[in-house]
Amino acid sequence: MTLHVFDQAIALQPLGDGRFTGNTSPAYANMVGPFGGVTAATALSAVLQHPDLLGEPVALTVNYAAALADGPFEVIARAARSNRSTQHWVVEIVQSGETVLTGTALTAARRDTWSVDELAAPDMPTPDAVGKPNMAAPVEWVKRYDIRITEGAIPTAWDGGGDASRTTLWMRDEPARPLDFCSLAAMADVFYPRVWLRRATRVPAGTVSMTVYFHAGSAQLAAAGAGWLKGQAQAQAFRNGFFDQTAQVWNEAGHLLATTHQVVYFKG
Amino acid sequence: MTLHVFDQAIALQPLGDGRFTGNTSPAYANMVGPFGGVTAATALSAVLQHPDLLGEPVALTVNYAAALADGPFEVIARAARSNRSTQHWVVEIVQSGETVLTGTALTAARRDTWSVDELAAPDMPTPDAVGKPNMAAPVEWVKRYDIRITEGAIPTAWDGGGDASRTTLWMRDEPARPLDFCSLAAMADVFYPRVWLRRATRVPAGTVSMTVYFHAGSAQLAAAGAGWLKGQAQAQAFRNGFFDQTAQVWNEAGHLLATTHQVVYFKG
Repeated sequence: MTLHVFDQAIALQPLGDGRFTGNTSPAYANMVGPFGGVTAATALSAVLQHPDLLGEPVALTVNYAAALADGPFEVIARAARSNRSTQHWVVEIVQSGETVLTGTALTAARRDTWSVDELAAPDMPTPDAVGKPNMAAPVEWVKRYDIRITEGAIPTAWDGGGDASRTTLWMRDEPARPLDFCSLAAMADVFYPRVWLRRATRVPAGTVSMTVYFHAGSAQLAAAGAGWLKGQAQAQAFRNGFFDQTAQVWNEAGHLLATTHQVVYFKG
Repeated sequence: MTLHVFDQAIALQPLGDGRFTGNTSPAYANMVGPFGGVTAATALSAVLQHPDLLGEPVALTVNYAAALADGPFEVIARAARSNRSTQHWVVEIVQSGETVLTGTALTAARRDTWSVDELAAPDMPTPDAVGKPNMAAPVEWVKRYDIRITEGAIPTAWDGGGDASRTTLWMRDEPARPLDFCSLAAMADVFYPRVWLRRATRVPAGTVSMTVYFHAGSAQLAAAGAGWLKGQAQAQAFRNGFFDQTAQVWNEAGHLLATTHQVVYFKG
């Protein structure tokens, strides 16, 4: 059996004591360094492989301190505090002796409780109606997803004429892969920079911090299988070289699996 | 000159090497331990007082690993990576040898760029029209704010009849205090648990992780002075013992100062 390309990309070798080694994957190359979603998934994977792990992910925050260079890196995951049903993790990725990612994660043993989705999924044409992947970006990682944008595509005319930053889309791994926490964390980062859409101007931009809240547990993720996910992303403010993005990921049936936020550097 | 009660609450004494000591303040006591907003502000204050600081806060994430006990604590702030114009911080609060808070922060030298607010402030009756503070909660910290809820007040009938979780409100420090990054971080956490509103059921609840994105720089915060801020908060999903909250804080004129998100534990 051959590992899925995503599993190859986030693969880690344990060194003991919460330390792991990994390697960047050319299959998920971005403009500079790897796709940030895969780096986030790799940080989360170290927590999930840690022998002290308690429960399942509830929150993950990663800060991209520098672009990873192609090659090996080390991930360090430390359980800073373990309570009866929650556990707080501190994560760091180091390359050539320098920190390239800082982060924290919260895992918890979840319980059956009253539950409700407050934010409904947007109405969208079906993936078949869109017909084929349509996120045109000249970077390798985009080919690892089948992304079908239904609103707010990357502008084709860079004429400064944008007036909103909302994108809605369908997405799934390409080739298909059953959903889990790591792939969901990665897909939280598939939305291209909101500034490109809002301003219809292509400027250098890169995520500097991303947080993902996991509403679904492993059973609900497994039930989603390799099906389509609905995604929606929108900026709330652009100011002095940074903008934010608030985004949501639903399963095909419209249940909210994750909500996510990021702050993005932009030039211009 | 007497320090404002907020400045007393977040006061730190430097121990050198990025370590500081502080004390919980009875003026900001919550049900169990201090108001989480003040603890977040204290963590940020350690970063802002660090001699190596570069730039101003852009992002702050704090994870509440355990309730602080009344008394002294230690804050450790470490610059994990300093680039030309951004700096990545790792923060921890320790009490009696145990981690009670983990966190990260991003600071940056911000530049004049194209800027726009995408999310408009909600239309609300004026603070005078509301008349007086109206967030009825039997905890001390609520008295340190003048909070005037204009939509989504704490239910008075706990009859399970809620159908939405949005709250809009006016807020400012009480007594008045000029706005800065620390007080803004604290006010990101003033919204009472969304589950109380959505479900009209009073269950134990507590924030476990909060992220704040600062869109305003120090000059814009200073310009807000001790004026009113507009806040809005809403949950997106409640599931298996946790819910999220997405919130925004605008100045009185309607400029977005911060966007913030948190994930909250609830019982029931």
